[in-house]
Amino acid sequence: SNETREYENYFGLTLLDRRSDKRTDTKWLSKKQSHPTTVYILFSNLSPLVTLGGGKESSQQSEIKLCRLHHKDVEQYVNQTEDGTLIFLGVELQFYTNLLAACNGRVLQEDEEDGLVAWFALSIDSASAEEFKQKHEDCYFLHPPVPALLQLPEKEAGVVAQARSVLAWHSRYRFCPTCGSATKIEEAGYKKTCLKEDCPSLQGVHNTSYPRVDPVVIMQVIHPDGNHCLLGRQKRFPPGMFTCLAGFVEPGETIEDAVRREVEEEAGVKIGHVQYVSCQPWPMPSSLMIGCLAVAVSTEIKVDKNEIEDARWFTREQVMEVLVKGNQRSFFVPPSRAIAHQLIKHWIGMNANL
Amino acid sequence: SNETREYENYFGLTLLDRRSDKRTDTKWLSKKQSHPTTVYILFSNLSPLVTLGGGKESSQQSEIKLCRLHHKDVEQYVNQTEDGTLIFLGVELQFYTNLLAACNGRVLQEDEEDGLVAWFALSIDSASAEEFKQKHEDCYFLHPPVPALLQLPEKEAGVVAQARSVLAWHSRYRFCPTCGSATKIEEAGYKKTCLKEDCPSLQGVHNTSYPRVDPVVIMQVIHPDGNHCLLGRQKRFPPGMFTCLAGFVEPGETIEDAVRREVEEEAGVKIGHVQYVSCQPWPMPSSLMIGCLAVAVSTEIKVDKNEIEDARWFTREQVMEVLVKGNQRSFFVPPSRAIAHQLIKHWIGMNANL
Ligand SMILES: Nc1ncnc2c1ncn2[C@@H]1O[C@H](COP(=O)(O)O)[C@@H](O)[C@H]1O
Ligand SMILES: Nc1ncnc2c1ncn2[C@@H]1O[C@H](COP(=O)(O)O)[C@@H](O)[C@H]1O
Repeated sequence: SNETREYENYFGLTLLDRRSDKRTDTKWLSKKQSHPTTVYILFSNLSPLVTLGGGKESSQQSEIKLCRLHHKDVEQYVNQTEDGTLIFLGVELQFYTNLLAACNGRVLQEDEEDGLVAWFALSIDSASAEEFKQKHEDCYFLHPPVPALLQLPEKEAGVVAQARSVLAWHSRYRFCPTCGSATKIEEAGYKKTCLKEDCPSLQGVHNTSYPRVDPVVIMQVIHPDGNHCLLGRQKRFPPGMFTCLAGFVEPGETIEDAVRREVEEEAGVKIGHVQYVSCQPWPMPSSLMIGCLAVAVSTEIKVDKNEIEDARWFTREQVMEVLVKGNQRSFFVPPSRAIAHQLIKHWIGMNANL
Repeated sequence: SNETREYENYFGLTLLDRRSDKRTDTKWLSKKQSHPTTVYILFSNLSPLVTLGGGKESSQQSEIKLCRLHHKDVEQYVNQTEDGTLIFLGVELQFYTNLLAACNGRVLQEDEEDGLVAWFALSIDSASAEEFKQKHEDCYFLHPPVPALLQLPEKEAGVVAQARSVLAWHSRYRFCPTCGSATKIEEAGYKKTCLKEDCPSLQGVHNTSYPRVDPVVIMQVIHPDGNHCLLGRQKRFPPGMFTCLAGFVEPGETIEDAVRREVEEEAGVKIGHVQYVSCQPWPMPSSLMIGCLAVAVSTEIKVDKNEIEDARWFTREQVMEVLVKGNQRSFFVPPSRAIAHQLIKHWIGMNANL
């Protein structure tokens, strides 16, 4: 299931099969938790434990990598923490495919070791994190996560996106939003159930029990002349950085209408045709960035100063120069692993074909 | 901002401009609340108040329409209910555009009547609902909302999607999920803030304060031969109904991977290329259905009986017959306003061009 991913982005690749069917298989989960091949990745305050790269998996862009720990490394913390902070992430995809081929259709006995390499994410408290760092001097918790997360190897970024989003959900949704009671974690970290017996959230299926994913539209706005694009900047950006406009999809709104509304709100520019390009999970804390091209039908810019600091039309030449030569004196765009960069590049490529 | 909507769906059209800038303008909001042109739509238990159609706006498919009430009709309930149940929906789009043209750029004085027709959604308790129905005999609360919601005129469906999603959020997210305290409603219904002074949710921006939108993938799976598609059914469907497979996007997952995972989980079929087609808000309670075409790279079906009851390959001819002639003895698909229907039709159209 990993064909034709060319249009997908960083944080969208993964090395795991989520195997959601195993989330309710408590026997299998507990066996895997203490299995010697099982991989643990550690978080403290939503920051993953990493180490400096340099091995096979590091590329020029990846200067750090996840610390892949084993049961013996984390045993004392697994038993110590609340169950909510241990999340089953999936099984290694590569390994799994090979194994299926080797088994050649033979069904494994219930108690037989299936050979799957399981991954878990474990969140530990600050005191334990301090203690752990003292024992493992080459490891540290990546902080602040942005933009450092973009330095992880591509395949690990997907795993971190999944783990960080689910952990952030647990840290921010500790209580039942329907009645205010305490909750318990189920399904290996993917479900949360109210502990109050007569809570209405226990009747039927409610989204209160499941992790949140916030759809965000991010759009490369193209000038009616086809040769300029609209980029903006927020006050909190590094000086000189411009990027695509973006905003949360609201309830009852299509992706296309969210694009039109956000561009009109932030920059006063009216949009006609909208076209989906690609998407990227963004674990801050749990967004799904939906990347689109948006064709403007008006050109006058009226910046809403509450939302952004500046927005301008840039020529194709200006943008190409920045993409090719990187950080320019005039302005620069986000790094190549950000979906905004990919959208801008996509537009440049489209134009080149005209 | 309403060009080229041909690829958009029911629940995606709207007659309102959301005017999110007005959500914090309490003076404007309170003036509009009692303004005689302001439109109120009423909900009880998340069901909208409707009446039988027959006016200009009803088409063959729309047998019902929203009751558009005014301040005098709802005055007693507005003052009675908690503020959380009154949601500002936006201003009429048509009217707004005409007005802007008429003003011809002149800036209105702060206190000058701007002529905008504002819409609000109001949720009332069951007792008030009973009382209201007795006074307005031609009106009733649409229940159960599915599939009856699909009978609303297209433009009203978008307003109902917006209102129902936000009201469902208020009814299910009454307490702060971070600390369990009570919350207060702000920004005309679009924000919820914890009342506990030192709650961590008050530091920084958190998604706990904003309405939820759950992205769901729904996909027309195409057989490698290009001439069959995969449709499935759940136990709770009416007998004979088959439709596209669907499932929630998980944290840290792309749209494309969610499509691949869900089809493999539910039907055991492997997917290669995935292509976005269109989307549709689905207010049950607050989903965004993201419609895709998915090309299968395997054909053997292994149904996961926990998720669906049946899944089969249907030939192009079988599907065309059902689309053209409607409910067949063999099987049928959802009505034309459902995104599944649109996806199936899109595939038929694509095939026709081959
Ligand atoms: N945000 C969510 N809201 C409701 N159900 C969810 C959500 N996320 C995952 N689920 C799961 O999806 C199932 C419902 O899927 P469906 O039958 O497609 O409506 C539920 O039984 C849950 O297990
Ligand atoms: N789910 C959400 N999570 C965080 N912020 C949201 C959400 N929905 C709407 N918002 C608003 O979007 C703003 C942040 O947008 P941005 O600057 O694009 O991150 C916040 O100040 C909120 O007003």
